[in-house]
Amino acid sequence: MSQTETELSRGEIRRRQILDAAARCFAQDGFHATSIATLSKATGMSPGHIYHFFANKEAIIGALIERKLAYSLQLVEQFEDAEDLFQALVERVELGLNEKTNLANAALELEILAEAARNPGVAASLRAADQIKRQRLMELIGQARRGRSQEEDPERDIAASTELLMALFDGLAVRAISHPDIDRAALIPLLQKAVATLIEG
Amino acid sequence: MSQTETELSRGEIRRRQILDAAARCFAQDGFHATSIATLSKATGMSPGHIYHFFANKEAIIGALIERKLAYSLQLVEQFEDAEDLFQALVERVELGLNEKTNLANAALELEILAEAARNPGVAASLRAADQIKRQRLMELIGQARRGRSQEEDPERDIAASTELLMALFDGLAVRAISHPDIDRAALIPLLQKAVATLIEG
Repeated sequence: MSQTETELSRGEIRRRQILDAAARCFAQDGFHATSIATLSKATGMSPGHIYHFFANKEAIIGALIERKLAYSLQLVEQFEDAEDLFQALVERVELGLNEKTNLANAALELEILAEAARNPGVAASLRAADQIKRQRLMELIGQARRGRSQEEDPERDIAASTELLMALFDGLAVRAISHPDIDRAALIPLLQKAVATLIEG
Repeated sequence: MSQTETELSRGEIRRRQILDAAARCFAQDGFHATSIATLSKATGMSPGHIYHFFANKEAIIGALIERKLAYSLQLVEQFEDAEDLFQALVERVELGLNEKTNLANAALELEILAEAARNPGVAASLRAADQIKRQRLMELIGQARRGRSQEEDPERDIAASTELLMALFDGLAVRAISHPDIDRAALIPLLQKAVATLIEG
């Protein structure tokens, strides 16, 4: 491995350490109560070293949003080669259920949403990521529908399907906070039915 | 009107003024950035006067959660006398859609959720209110199902229906933040279909 590659991956490891610490601190203490000094303490890196990677806390939230987007797109990719895409999406609802009702994930997601509701920079990052994810899901849902019927569905219908599927899963993150004892296993059969209804449109 | 009643309603008016200002400030600036001094400025009331009504900021969030619960229960009450409850719930999805995608409502809701994810006192208030609302919705959904079939559904099924209906509508608040240009009208027919699927179980 060349010197440059070693340097790059060392930098990448540092960057990830900062993001992991920030994800924990933002979820536990909130964005405003977390300072660069807090992150310095949590990572054992100097504030100057942290600023080398991120200009400010907004940039860290921006990177967390991008990382989450990359993870979501990876989840979507898993479905791309499915023989029966519709069936695969319905069968694997548990993936989304577990991801969304994980308490640490849900806490971070809600903190970012609350911050986006008042911070235009965070709102812009969140909405840009949401648009990319939505677009990708619309393609997937269009493809799943075409597997079921020969008709081409109007884009507006596919957009509504996508929006409500996203609402249903985003809402599971909210439920994880409001009702942490939620009986996850009991939800699966009905969640599958709802996902089928929403994809079919 | 007796002197006592006048005093009571004057107190109630003051209390509401504090809650309205707190709802605005918590949504706009966040719970932590809002101090009793901020609320004093926003209401024109002295800090001592505010403390006369609420022991601290947590108590104000608690009262906002209770007020939201009372409003939700009022919405539920509107359905109680419906001739065909199932049909009424499906037909009036727009009520929930508009309520949940109102940006100011959504911002406050997400701020309270984010705070609940890290503040045990706020979590306890939120979860107590959620339980009351969930219980009331379970009764309503049980009743809507009985209007459709003679069989008595097991409680676990009705709980799953309720949970996923709550997830779908809670998720619409998330969508309002992540995608404020959401085409609300385009969602209604499919939202009705999804609600019917979720109630039927």
